[in-house]
Amino acid sequence: MKDRETIYGVHAVRVMLARHPERVLALRLSASRDDGRVRELEELAREHRRPVQRMEARALERELGDVAHQGVAADIVPLGAWSEDDLLAALGSGSHPLLLALDGVQDPHNLGACLRTADACGALAVIVPRDRAAQLTPAARKVAAGAAETTPVAAVTNLVRTLKLLKEAGLWLVGADAGAEQPAHAVDLTGGIVLVLGAEGAGLRQLTRQTCDFLVRLPQLGAVESLNVSVAAAMLLYEAVRQRAVGVRVAASRT
Amino acid sequence: MKDRETIYGVHAVRVMLARHPERVLALRLSASRDDGRVRELEELAREHRRPVQRMEARALERELGDVAHQGVAADIVPLGAWSEDDLLAALGSGSHPLLLALDGVQDPHNLGACLRTADACGALAVIVPRDRAAQLTPAARKVAAGAAETTPVAAVTNLVRTLKLLKEAGLWLVGADAGAEQPAHAVDLTGGIVLVLGAEGAGLRQLTRQTCDFLVRLPQLGAVESLNVSVAAAMLLYEAVRQRAVGVRVAASRT
Repeated sequence: MKDRETIYGVHAVRVMLARHPERVLALRLSASRDDGRVRELEELAREHRRPVQRMEARALERELGDVAHQGVAADIVPLGAWSEDDLLAALGSGSHPLLLALDGVQDPHNLGACLRTADACGALAVIVPRDRAAQLTPAARKVAAGAAETTPVAAVTNLVRTLKLLKEAGLWLVGADAGAEQPAHAVDLTGGIVLVLGAEGAGLRQLTRQTCDFLVRLPQLGAVESLNVSVAAAMLLYEAVRQRAVGVRVAASRT
Repeated sequence: MKDRETIYGVHAVRVMLARHPERVLALRLSASRDDGRVRELEELAREHRRPVQRMEARALERELGDVAHQGVAADIVPLGAWSEDDLLAALGSGSHPLLLALDGVQDPHNLGACLRTADACGALAVIVPRDRAAQLTPAARKVAAGAAETTPVAAVTNLVRTLKLLKEAGLWLVGADAGAEQPAHAVDLTGGIVLVLGAEGAGLRQLTRQTCDFLVRLPQLGAVESLNVSVAAAMLLYEAVRQRAVGVRVAASRT
């Protein structure tokens, strides 16, 4: 991991300044921007005593490349990978945590895409096995579009053991399985939960499947047998956010 | 477009034989497979008078490459792009059609991913503008993982005009917009609907937005400002399938 990462875009930089000001090394703003949204960022930076650098629009463009930076960037201390201990310690920080576990996803693009969606859905962290699975490589970070700097990835030695520890901590494990009887909306996802997804095609490994409290299925009405894992993650995370928004409790039968 | 495409995997081949036997040119089966699922395919092929070729597992492997073919492939007549007329004519074929329209999506991978999810969610077709937008290229077909052979892409000259014609035909237009007041679950998606998604970052073009009957928002709880368009499509399509499964009618205020 590099000792600094650059994030860009008004929203991403504002979120970082507001939530983790200590990680912001410097704010870089295009000289050509002088509007309310950018002044708000300058104000936030001043409040937290973070240096602000004004630079030529073209120089910023050159450094960042062809991305939607909106004339705003920040150098930050990268978010390191979480250990199992970090993960367990973080559970106490909020009620009803939402976690995503990826069981053997190999493609860093899929990890990056899942991380970006997990961030949008307010997930506490994404859990991956340390071996034989995609890690947070530069390619994964790029696809995550900044989410890698706010939503941590916990790389664990033994995924099933970690899942069991999360279960002991009071979370429910909900696995996606094409053969499951219940659709995702039939299971209560409003409490503390871990959504568990397997590798594309192969699905959950047997031991992971057995560890889950509930197995749910996702739409499968077409000719193609499986959903892309990042699409399955999007559907499950969406369903959890929806249930939490409407506050439903559904009666579900446990696996 | 090539004059034949190859699809593979037991499920995809069975769906094609059952729904569109006239498009199957030949079935190719690995000599090493002789189980119930494969015998069922042979039976279906015989029923529809489609030639079946048994070949060495290794030869099949060589032809198909490293994909999850399960020893089963079929050469088929590719599904051609639909015109606006094809699209309008198809509306009568079922009740409550579900359509996906992509307004200016540039990346063929995103089109392919949306197509694959649209297929899984039982969509009638995916609509794209003919110009300045991703078309069904080989790259898009590959990402669609076979869905391009069952779920048609309608390439239209003027997306807004097509949307208006669909509206006149009785469909509701539901656009995804980050600034919308209503979440997707607050709008009734159980009738005939077109889900409309804009390009990543830019969102819906103004004229497209104005044409929509409803605008809905998707989860946006994190640091990253936008969802990937294929993830947004997955969430909206999932929500439509969910509502249709539970049969809810929700009271929504029209835009």
